[in-house]
Amino acid sequence: MITVLSGGVGAARLLRALRATSHPPEIRAVVNVGDDLVLHGLTICPDLDTILYTLAGLNNDQTGWGLAGESWRVMAELEAIGGESWFRLGDRDLATHLYRTQRLASGATKTMVSAELASTLGVNVTLLPVTDDPVATVFETAEGRLSFQEYFVRHHHAVRVSGVEIVGAASARATPAAFSALEAAHRIVIAPSNPIISIDPILQVPGVRDAVRARRDDVIAVSPIIGGVALKGPADRLLAELGHDVSCVGVADFYGDLVGTWVIDEADAAHEATLRDRGYDVRITTTVMGRADHDAALAAAVLS
Amino acid sequence: MITVLSGGVGAARLLRALRATSHPPEIRAVVNVGDDLVLHGLTICPDLDTILYTLAGLNNDQTGWGLAGESWRVMAELEAIGGESWFRLGDRDLATHLYRTQRLASGATKTMVSAELASTLGVNVTLLPVTDDPVATVFETAEGRLSFQEYFVRHHHAVRVSGVEIVGAASARATPAAFSALEAAHRIVIAPSNPIISIDPILQVPGVRDAVRARRDDVIAVSPIIGGVALKGPADRLLAELGHDVSCVGVADFYGDLVGTWVIDEADAAHEATLRDRGYDVRITTTVMGRADHDAALAAAVLS
Repeated sequence: MITVLSGGVGAARLLRALRATSHPPEIRAVVNVGDDLVLHGLTICPDLDTILYTLAGLNNDQTGWGLAGESWRVMAELEAIGGESWFRLGDRDLATHLYRTQRLASGATKTMVSAELASTLGVNVTLLPVTDDPVATVFETAEGRLSFQEYFVRHHHAVRVSGVEIVGAASARATPAAFSALEAAHRIVIAPSNPIISIDPILQVPGVRDAVRARRDDVIAVSPIIGGVALKGPADRLLAELGHDVSCVGVADFYGDLVGTWVIDEADAAHEATLRDRGYDVRITTTVMGRADHDAALAAAVLS
Repeated sequence: MITVLSGGVGAARLLRALRATSHPPEIRAVVNVGDDLVLHGLTICPDLDTILYTLAGLNNDQTGWGLAGESWRVMAELEAIGGESWFRLGDRDLATHLYRTQRLASGATKTMVSAELASTLGVNVTLLPVTDDPVATVFETAEGRLSFQEYFVRHHHAVRVSGVEIVGAASARATPAAFSALEAAHRIVIAPSNPIISIDPILQVPGVRDAVRARRDDVIAVSPIIGGVALKGPADRLLAELGHDVSCVGVADFYGDLVGTWVIDEADAAHEATLRDRGYDVRITTTVMGRADHDAALAAAVLS
């Protein structure tokens, strides 16, 4: 059994690659909830949903978000009556949010709802929100304090960030299932998700960082930075703005002593010596997912 | 200016008929909120929406609920993933609920949201929820205590009722706008809505019954019972189950000294003498709305 610390798209693709191997292990994902939000009264969990949809084969691989064959009737009508429509919710996607919100109102936890949705959609990866308590990633920016989705969607992450706070993290309780996944895993994988706003909000929940560190020799991380850039999203920009080196070495320094082995892209082979000097084992492969042969190579590097 | 105490369909049709007259007065509707509900996290106000949609010409006149040209993508998907789909929410309709819920979360009142939606949809009737506080109509039945929509939609009002309680009514505060509409009106009209579950929840909000009674000579009510039956909904059944006579006289006795004038259907002309004996003025006309000439006749009887 392996456990994958997961954000959204990058983690979803890694999970899909791992599951596509010929003898896939049991897989559990401990998932970030820092970018969850309540909008129009609906509880929306973007990272959990991205993983769900991707593993169910429902995702739109072109856009990297949302569902294939999505329709937009509700959004069009909401826009027509002057509602907030900057956060695009497709009709199919809305069904997920209605379902989750109703179940939460009935007393279910996010963990329970994730299991229900995974079962319904035929997803055979165990999705574990790191916590069932509310946490919210907030950005200190030139435009003031912004919520995750204000920064990410409304401002298209094109505003300078001077700090990131995971509000509620210090008092959140990791779920027993998340702790158990970290303790029982043969291997812990840190997905190539955004270190600062996808993985760190998981690590900031009390006890999680220690639980990962205790397994350091079995922790393997995939660098989200390739040749100095992030394939998707603002990881490169955020690392630079918050004073980190924008390279796989910068990400390694950010995680510090949590990781035993780094998987870096062939484009970053020149960094291998530096990482080894810092005490890490290193594996070099392609880390650009989406092609079957690439996915297989990365999965092999992670699982071997 | 006239003020109409309003439930859903019957009130919406009367308001439409009143507005369609050649020189319509300014119209304000004081609307029941006892059947409002929160479902999937969304605040839904069925009576306000029925009036809005009807006056905007968006309603489905065939079904008597919902919108013409409605689509059902979200409901179909919600059903497919095992969500609660007994309360049918169309895609267009959902936009209204998303809008209202988001505005309420931003601190707006139902009164403010009603004004916004009316303005957006070009509805020139002032829609005033009787209160911005939560009230909920609850039914004591053979199946236990049921919420309004459980009784009405889930059980198709086909279960015996032994009592009705308007939870929260005693501590709800009528809005200043609702009081003002009752005090300033040239005439107060009680729509042919369900007396027990549409009009009484309005009257039970402290101060409203007294405000109506103080205007008794100017209060004109349209009977929702025609020839011993309700055209729509369970008004006849509820009157009988709760010990009232199922006739325009039974409804008159239910409202008691609030009403100065009764408008009854030609089919009930035989009840005129009884109503006059009880001290009411009586007008007889057709009260079955939907045809232009019928609508005009009823509007004339109410306004003359």
